[in-house]
Amino acid sequence: MSEAAARQVAIVGLGLIGSSIARGAAAAGWRVTGWDADGAVRDEARTLGLGEVPASVGSAVEGADLVILCVPVGAMGAAAAAIAPYLSMHTVVSDVGSCKASVAAALAEALPGTEIVPAHPVAGTERSGPAAGFASLFQGRWCILTPAADADKAAVALVTAFWRALGATVEVMTPEHHDRVLAVTSHLPHLIAYTIVGTASDLEEVTQGEVIKYSAGGFRDFTRIAASDPTMWRDVFLTNRAAVLEMLGRFSEDLAMMQRAIRWGDGDALFDLFTRTRAVRRSIVEQGQDDARPDFGRGQGDAAV
Amino acid sequence: MSEAAARQVAIVGLGLIGSSIARGAAAAGWRVTGWDADGAVRDEARTLGLGEVPASVGSAVEGADLVILCVPVGAMGAAAAAIAPYLSMHTVVSDVGSCKASVAAALAEALPGTEIVPAHPVAGTERSGPAAGFASLFQGRWCILTPAADADKAAVALVTAFWRALGATVEVMTPEHHDRVLAVTSHLPHLIAYTIVGTASDLEEVTQGEVIKYSAGGFRDFTRIAASDPTMWRDVFLTNRAAVLEMLGRFSEDLAMMQRAIRWGDGDALFDLFTRTRAVRRSIVEQGQDDARPDFGRGQGDAAV
Repeated sequence: MSEAAARQVAIVGLGLIGSSIARGAAAAGWRVTGWDADGAVRDEARTLGLGEVPASVGSAVEGADLVILCVPVGAMGAAAAAIAPYLSMHTVVSDVGSCKASVAAALAEALPGTEIVPAHPVAGTERSGPAAGFASLFQGRWCILTPAADADKAAVALVTAFWRALGATVEVMTPEHHDRVLAVTSHLPHLIAYTIVGTASDLEEVTQGEVIKYSAGGFRDFTRIAASDPTMWRDVFLTNRAAVLEMLGRFSEDLAMMQRAIRWGDGDALFDLFTRTRAVRRSIVEQGQDDARPDFGRGQGDAAV
Repeated sequence: MSEAAARQVAIVGLGLIGSSIARGAAAAGWRVTGWDADGAVRDEARTLGLGEVPASVGSAVEGADLVILCVPVGAMGAAAAAIAPYLSMHTVVSDVGSCKASVAAALAEALPGTEIVPAHPVAGTERSGPAAGFASLFQGRWCILTPAADADKAAVALVTAFWRALGATVEVMTPEHHDRVLAVTSHLPHLIAYTIVGTASDLEEVTQGEVIKYSAGGFRDFTRIAASDPTMWRDVFLTNRAAVLEMLGRFSEDLAMMQRAIRWGDGDALFDLFTRTRAVRRSIVEQGQDDARPDFGRGQGDAAV
């Protein structure tokens, strides 16, 4: 490839994340090719103008400088095997999976001899599908790379430059540490949100209509992440099992302690925790990881009440 | 009082809710008087122009058509006792407490012979204090009244008209049913959010800095409600103890079932729940109880990244 030619990124899997990358990469001047195992999604991607979307995965990845797999973590191995015959010598393969140890192993097994730089952009919304994506999704967010200790430096530099071009800040850590960090900052919150929404739906005496009506008291905050893609999240929990179970164990212990404080009327224990947690929120807002406006700035958009 | 004169509402407790009511009532043409046990809050309320704020609670409530107690639920009995000597024959007393059975009992005991119409506007933000309030907080939200079976119809009508003037839709139910509905839609979500933020802060291997950095993966949604007023929420859990403990028991059972599904690799059980919970979110958005924009519309305001 001549230095003057635009570099090519191939995106396999054109859902929320894949289509957001396609838009961001095109805006950053990359040539974008894409593919999705679902023909209807490919058609939708073509209608949306998400780069070149050929009829076969081989045509999509052939000659690409970078291939990014944007499929559920349980499908990473199969997606890597499907692209393997069509990769060029210089192609670097990356992914966006929310679990890194298992994905790194699956990619290494399916793609011997290929430079692999696993990645995880910590960004998303509760929407799914190609139409849900947008180019600014990664602006100001973190993207974590988990290259092997002996990874090619140029390959890591390429993936780093790619994510910076999309507005993300890049961090490097081991897959194992990533999986523990994300178990607490992402996986456990999703599991808890899914569970409480299920608990509320199952009540007999309080109707589901009432749960929805009075959701502004706090419940609605949980329903947003409980609307996330079911396939993606099933795979996350099956894949990052050990770390999720450990964090869940810690949470359950803490919840039991709160339950005991409520039962025995220990107001000081409750007050102490509730004061401590305020500081965490303050730090998140200060570091630009959340909207500073009260109530997430709800009610300030056209779609809001 | 002549029909032509503006009606007077006295607000006792000028925090987020009290100051929002003061602003909304003034906008709706009511004469507003206010008081707070904290002298610094009274000064701030005067600076903010939140109605007339005299030096004594007696002067604030004297002659009012409606007195609304906006203090933590654990302080309702004392606040009612403090105003008792100054109420007129025609004064109706209401409140905004998040628990209704205990508050209704405390008000009835402290104010024998006074017309009492307990109320709970299901609205709020994670901010506290008089400066955090705004007049539109109750627009499109529900306000639940829990009058006794033999309550005076004119008193209920007055409180209903008041909340409608502030933009709320009024519902009537028993205090006991209210406490069970809110245990699941508000109290349990807050308890879980406070707990998980505590759990995340206590990890040794994953640093608090990492928890904050990667919070956009889901955790940050929980930190918003875990930044709510500690005193208010301590009182809620001590007061609505039975209903909260029951809902917490159900949640813990459901969470144990999810834990088992993860441990045994039961992907179908996870997928089934994750699919079911999507529909609940859809209903909440359809009924105007949350922002339809993805990610709560984050990043669309001036304060956002």
